[in-house]
Amino acid sequence: MPDSPATPPTSPMPLPMVGVGVDVHAFATEADLELAPRPLRLAGLDWPGQGGLLGHSDADVVAHAACNALFSAAGLGDLGSNFGTDQPEWKGAAGIVLLAEAARRVREAGLHIGNVAVQLIGQRPKLGPRRAEAEAVLSEAAGAPVRVSAATTDGLGFTGRGEGLTAIATAIVFPTAN
Amino acid sequence: MPDSPATPPTSPMPLPMVGVGVDVHAFATEADLELAPRPLRLAGLDWPGQGGLLGHSDADVVAHAACNALFSAAGLGDLGSNFGTDQPEWKGAAGIVLLAEAARRVREAGLHIGNVAVQLIGQRPKLGPRRAEAEAVLSEAAGAPVRVSAATTDGLGFTGRGEGLTAIATAIVFPTAN
Amino acid sequence: MPDSPATPPTSPMPLPMVGVGVDVHAFATEADLELAPRPLRLAGLDWPGQGGLLGHSDADVVAHAACNALFSAAGLGDLGSNFGTDQPEWKGAAGIVLLAEAARRVREAGLHIGNVAVQLIGQRPKLGPRRAEAEAVLSEAAGAPVRVSAATTDGLGFTGRGEGLTAIATAIVFPTAN
Repeated sequence: MPDSPATPPTSPMPLPMVGVGVDVHAFATEADLELAPRPLRLAGLDWPGQGGLLGHSDADVVAHAACNALFSAAGLGDLGSNFGTDQPEWKGAAGIVLLAEAARRVREAGLHIGNVAVQLIGQRPKLGPRRAEAEAVLSEAAGAPVRVSAATTDGLGFTGRGEGLTAIATAIVFPTAN
Repeated sequence: MPDSPATPPTSPMPLPMVGVGVDVHAFATEADLELAPRPLRLAGLDWPGQGGLLGHSDADVVAHAACNALFSAAGLGDLGSNFGTDQPEWKGAAGIVLLAEAARRVREAGLHIGNVAVQLIGQRPKLGPRRAEAEAVLSEAAGAPVRVSAATTDGLGFTGRGEGLTAIATAIVFPTAN
Repeated sequence: MPDSPATPPTSPMPLPMVGVGVDVHAFATEADLELAPRPLRLAGLDWPGQGGLLGHSDADVVAHAACNALFSAAGLGDLGSNFGTDQPEWKGAAGIVLLAEAARRVREAGLHIGNVAVQLIGQRPKLGPRRAEAEAVLSEAAGAPVRVSAATTDGLGFTGRGEGLTAIATAIVFPTAN
């Protein structure tokens, strides 16, 4: 440490910590969909009539980014280190199941989850009409408020060309007084 | 909820919440600019001599990302749900006007805005020399400190090719004691 | 300011502020590497056998994004305004040296650093096996906990094609009681 850091303010409240998380998945192409149907699962919801995202799991980028932000804030690694090949019991698990387990691990580490916020970036589906529903399902899974919002990229990049979806998330956690 | 979440620390201060926001707009091409001049409006400032960003609004990605981060932290949706086609009075409004209104709605929801931070990603304009000016205008609109910084992408992706600008933002808000 | 903002909650603790930071660098191509070896320096570590990132500095996107997030939270600008051409003594400095100096400037401004969180986005190297090592080196430099995690983009975009790496970071800082 280059010099003694400034002492934190005296506080009756343990200092909060923040995290950041990203996830990206590609949409199944028409050729993919002719070989096998692939439903869209996103933000904890089913989206009938929408071609899905590819991945070994359900490829729910919103739930995955939320997991990554929680692990990041808590200093517990990421999706890969938590649910990777050395933990095969999570293989293929739904994003919402992973989010519930991520939140459980964060609390097990002695942290209270303040909130999680996720921004979905891409062309489809239209999130707005189902935002409240998505937030309810994700918040129930996380045991804490999860906000979801959406933006497009004005036709630019792989999200603008409709090739996939990106989700970016942040989270805040608080050490619990034990 | 999978299990009873850890109780938050006893605190005289309501717990803060964080949010994330993104916005992307494409630059007008030379062909676009020959058809109609399109001035650049960015970070609440005019940039004379710079070709502008396309959009129904002024396409101020910095102000828009700040709005999205505020709405995200407050759990109030996003630009589309707040200023979309069902609220035509905001059609074409300047980014800075939207930011002021976003901040008003967040405060109306009983929240104090701690700060907003936005990183602009792209090739031009050079933000550095006008950063203080931009921060003053945006902070005045938001009624809270708004920081703006910039990065390039080393020639990669649509921002690296100069096709458009991305802005990524975060915000922190605090429930007010009522 | 459009109207009087809600007063912040009475609090014995100065309110925390958050920031966001991004950095992107391109990988050296095989042609570049034939002309001159370019080792990979990332997250404060050397990665033997991996072709490096291009840049005037060591191009450590993780350390650079962490710097940007710290400056953003503190309202101190960005990498360019802090270590740019008008401060030639920082030219070519390692990312970790810049991170230590960024943290010093943030503390000098009267702020305590809560934590920094960085998500690395790209195809290689595999961060997982060296995450603890990277976090130790970066945290030592920052004098505060720095978390590092990783994600891929499912083959999409410049990161998915292995052309470069992106890092996205957030940070939280607290005014110190003086």
